[in-house]
Amino acid sequence: MSPQQHVDRHLEPLSQPRNFRRRHNSWSSSSRHPNQATPKKTGLKNGQGKTKDDECFGDDVEELPDTDFDFEGNLALFDKAAVFEEIDTHERRCGPRARGVPSDRPTRYRHDENILESEPTVYRRIAVPHPANREFCTDSGLVVPSVSYELHKKLLSAAERHGLTLERRLEVTGVCASQMALTLLGGPNRLNPKNVHQRPLVAVLCGPHVKGAQGISCGRHLANHDVQVILFLPNFVKMLESITTELALFSKTQGQQVSSLKDLPGSPVDLVINCLDCPENAFLRDQPWYKAAVAWANENRAPVLSVDPPARALDCGVDAKWSLALGLPLALGEHAGRVYLCDIGLPQQVFQEVGISYHSPFGCKFVIPLHPA
Amino acid sequence: MSPQQHVDRHLEPLSQPRNFRRRHNSWSSSSRHPNQATPKKTGLKNGQGKTKDDECFGDDVEELPDTDFDFEGNLALFDKAAVFEEIDTHERRCGPRARGVPSDRPTRYRHDENILESEPTVYRRIAVPHPANREFCTDSGLVVPSVSYELHKKLLSAAERHGLTLERRLEVTGVCASQMALTLLGGPNRLNPKNVHQRPLVAVLCGPHVKGAQGISCGRHLANHDVQVILFLPNFVKMLESITTELALFSKTQGQQVSSLKDLPGSPVDLVINCLDCPENAFLRDQPWYKAAVAWANENRAPVLSVDPPARALDCGVDAKWSLALGLPLALGEHAGRVYLCDIGLPQQVFQEVGISYHSPFGCKFVIPLHPA
Repeated sequence: MSPQQHVDRHLEPLSQPRNFRRRHNSWSSSSRHPNQATPKKTGLKNGQGKTKDDECFGDDVEELPDTDFDFEGNLALFDKAAVFEEIDTHERRCGPRARGVPSDRPTRYRHDENILESEPTVYRRIAVPHPANREFCTDSGLVVPSVSYELHKKLLSAAERHGLTLERRLEVTGVCASQMALTLLGGPNRLNPKNVHQRPLVAVLCGPHVKGAQGISCGRHLANHDVQVILFLPNFVKMLESITTELALFSKTQGQQVSSLKDLPGSPVDLVINCLDCPENAFLRDQPWYKAAVAWANENRAPVLSVDPPARALDCGVDAKWSLALGLPLALGEHAGRVYLCDIGLPQQVFQEVGISYHSPFGCKFVIPLHPA
Repeated sequence: MSPQQHVDRHLEPLSQPRNFRRRHNSWSSSSRHPNQATPKKTGLKNGQGKTKDDECFGDDVEELPDTDFDFEGNLALFDKAAVFEEIDTHERRCGPRARGVPSDRPTRYRHDENILESEPTVYRRIAVPHPANREFCTDSGLVVPSVSYELHKKLLSAAERHGLTLERRLEVTGVCASQMALTLLGGPNRLNPKNVHQRPLVAVLCGPHVKGAQGISCGRHLANHDVQVILFLPNFVKMLESITTELALFSKTQGQQVSSLKDLPGSPVDLVINCLDCPENAFLRDQPWYKAAVAWANENRAPVLSVDPPARALDCGVDAKWSLALGLPLALGEHAGRVYLCDIGLPQQVFQEVGISYHSPFGCKFVIPLHPA
């Protein structure tokens, strides 16, 4: 059982529609043996104290008789010294396996032997100033520390200075968040020319800020891919320029924009994308539309993907099943659900400029799952 | 054998390094049975007149004895009328299978029955004015017509007018082309924290035009993902603004920029990304740096991915193994290799504005393989 599937079972609310349960999640398929490379400590924490039997046999495990295996007694039967001596003798005799003493090395290598001395793998390749109290790790065991909201903001300003403008970042975020949403919706099984009558329905909830603009960009890319999108954005007299631009582009799709909660569907949608919260516009949370949007999302019973959510849980917020963090994660808590990290295209030197020693944890992907470390 | 693999076998030059041969290509894995949904006509053309035996047994098929099966004789033995009558009788007796006559319909459906009348699948969902002489189809059989260079340009101008700026398109193209390149380089097998000594080496060849800027964007995203990138761009006194911006961003990565061909590696690289050609700057082809770059690419023996190549083969150009077309394909010929299509985020109404009736062929992906139709 992979860490994802495990976390999945624990965080899955009972209220979800059945077709969202045992879905294969291709975002975590890049590693076939995700735990192999994970440091042991992490593996244990992921398991949250559950035993292997628990994972394998589910809830029926309580019925098994309590006959513990005597590990210590069994270990005492094992003559370590003798076994190691046997291994040593064997290695000395069979040349190719003798390592460490250069003169013993064979002059020819077999086709399955590595002639390079492999260096130990470094799992801690990102270092942040003032490390926060939360760390994550990737499927391959790389450690990804969380950053404070202030440092994250500083990072984005540095990116902006070097030409990685908000417009660019909105576009990458839209592409990557929609790629993740398309997978969560069922990917090729759902979006298939043979079942046009089954177009998935997604509600995108946006606040009137940059985080909301990210949601509009994501909504546009989803609508471009044949998903039925209903975009909720409250009416404001003066809108941010980035919101206006994204809205103009969204209006060229078949997606629908609404500014009143009563225009959102009453029956469960397939996915809610939550872009309501922005730490800098905390006053918005007191407004009636915000409270109504949160109430709608909680009543709708659809699974929620939060894009770029704030670190702290809000008493009045929407609980997410999945969260997508951008660049580096904040110290996201339980309310964020399963955390994914999105590559928004920041080059290494941009990280350096704000004091972060950075080495990409993404491998060949643009969105990767993170696990609590 | 899937259409990809088939095309692969036929287009594969002998000169390629062995590790690029039978690679599993996840870009075409969205459909398990790609030919099932393909109209029969298309399927035949894909096979280019080859029989099933040909595909299955390869070149040895000529040695089989020439004993043709007598289809017509066998058909004559078959009493169609009797069989249809038997089917009709059976359907009338077993209610659930009787369709068409409403009163015959059962009031209860079994769990594996579809209560919706399924409409016939439409495979031709994109219509262009003045259809060109070339058509493609997707894995699921959707027909994708090619467009002229002029119409393609008109389409991008319309996108620009609606706010889908060059900057945005450069970013999406960079993300999607680098996602494709990362897959071609071996994906998770190659980019893995355990084999840091095996970082893939990619040469990106760019001309001093917008197509070159796309290459620089792709190079930056590859460098962000730990790929060793060497970017070739000839020296020009005055550069396009889009080139200058992309270069500034690229310079913040660990990628290396060179303006002289002699600084490119002499030994084979893992992949060459070709962004040298632009139909509007045809005079560049006569310049010494262009000829030298083409000669270097052909001598290097690395497989070539062309991003947004022109429709006609150039006598002096680089032959690609793969080509990535943007939005809608041009009438790409043999020199383009296997054709892939990239979703650069154009909304449906932008297509309509230039007279293209459009319905996304992408399903849940941003890059899909196209096959000759």
